[in-house]
Amino acid sequence: MKSYRKEMFLNIPARRGFLNITSQVEEALRESGIQEGLCLVNPMHITASVFINDDESGLHHDYDAWLEKMAPHEPVSQYRHNDTGEDNADAHIKRQIMGREVVVAVTEGRLDFGTWEQIFYGEFDGRRRKRVLVKIIGE
Amino acid sequence: MKSYRKEMFLNIPARRGFLNITSQVEEALRESGIQEGLCLVNPMHITASVFINDDESGLHHDYDAWLEKMAPHEPVSQYRHNDTGEDNADAHIKRQIMGREVVVAVTEGRLDFGTWEQIFYGEFDGRRRKRVLVKIIGE
Amino acid sequence: MKSYRKEMFLNIPARRGFLNITSQVEEALRESGIQEGLCLVNPMHITASVFINDDESGLHHDYDAWLEKMAPHEPVSQYRHNDTGEDNADAHIKRQIMGREVVVAVTEGRLDFGTWEQIFYGEFDGRRRKRVLVKIIGE
Repeated sequence: MKSYRKEMFLNIPARRGFLNITSQVEEALRESGIQEGLCLVNPMHITASVFINDDESGLHHDYDAWLEKMAPHEPVSQYRHNDTGEDNADAHIKRQIMGREVVVAVTEGRLDFGTWEQIFYGEFDGRRRKRVLVKIIGE
Repeated sequence: MKSYRKEMFLNIPARRGFLNITSQVEEALRESGIQEGLCLVNPMHITASVFINDDESGLHHDYDAWLEKMAPHEPVSQYRHNDTGEDNADAHIKRQIMGREVVVAVTEGRLDFGTWEQIFYGEFDGRRRKRVLVKIIGE
Repeated sequence: MKSYRKEMFLNIPARRGFLNITSQVEEALRESGIQEGLCLVNPMHITASVFINDDESGLHHDYDAWLEKMAPHEPVSQYRHNDTGEDNADAHIKRQIMGREVVVAVTEGRLDFGTWEQIFYGEFDGRRRKRVLVKIIGE
């Protein structure tokens, strides 16, 4: 069994944003030399998500508006977590809705995806450098 | 290390619906001959979910009604994604709530489940053929 | 390839609660002797979640209050699942929001975590003994 690990670095300039990281994950997979296996991709932070969906800017707008309706950022005083001096309780909630990680099948050296599947980093408390972990195991 | 890949085909006749796919996944596991490992199951589409919960029709009704309250299909004009000519923005949102994939432990050649765990395909934009991927790695 | 399986037992004395299980998962990882691989952690029940977030009691209060707003326990008659004699339909919904399982990278014999990542068991229908499964594969 082979394994490969890579950290990717990101910096979303706004509080919230979505970034297509598929090509970086594909690059890590090529570097790994793994042909058959599983590929885990997760943020190393707890106010961000890695998820798979469509690369369509209208949809990303819809996600952002809907998440903000589900768990509004303001007023920050509505969340007890923010009594600690943070203002990101909503980001911890948004990340749970969107999920932490994805696990993707690796087949014949490629991410085994349907036509429209793309991997995104979803940031809910940005404006600083964050890390995404790629871990691939297989043969 | 062994790996096994199988595509399953589904066609939910309504826009939304839930289908128990546990026995098909168990069949793929038997075909793989893998005794110890991990089994990934995911839709190859971005408006559907694979999730694990209870095979109880009342609960599935509750899921459907609750998801429709969280992210209503109508009016379709409320979602910017639908400006592209689609009418399925709500389905992309419902899929994120329910999750994309499941990873199941394989132990002694079986899905390592608690008493009530069953695998479901959740469709949120049906009425056409869809694919589910099963990828198993182990020994 | 090596694999390791362990069941952990939990009993949350209230209907709902969150418990940090990181150290128990780390103990299972040490017992496995696995240095590089993937670690799956999931409840063997369908009204509970395993998730990764912050060990901060204010945030856990926020999660609980927010989940109760999204899918209230009362009135139990609002859910068709509860017509079966159960009163836990809300718990099945809360578990879907928070997710079932986590998959964690194992690197150099450790859970490959960012600074604040901790593993929690989230109970939504407690007051009885429950099981959490840890399955680790790798080398």
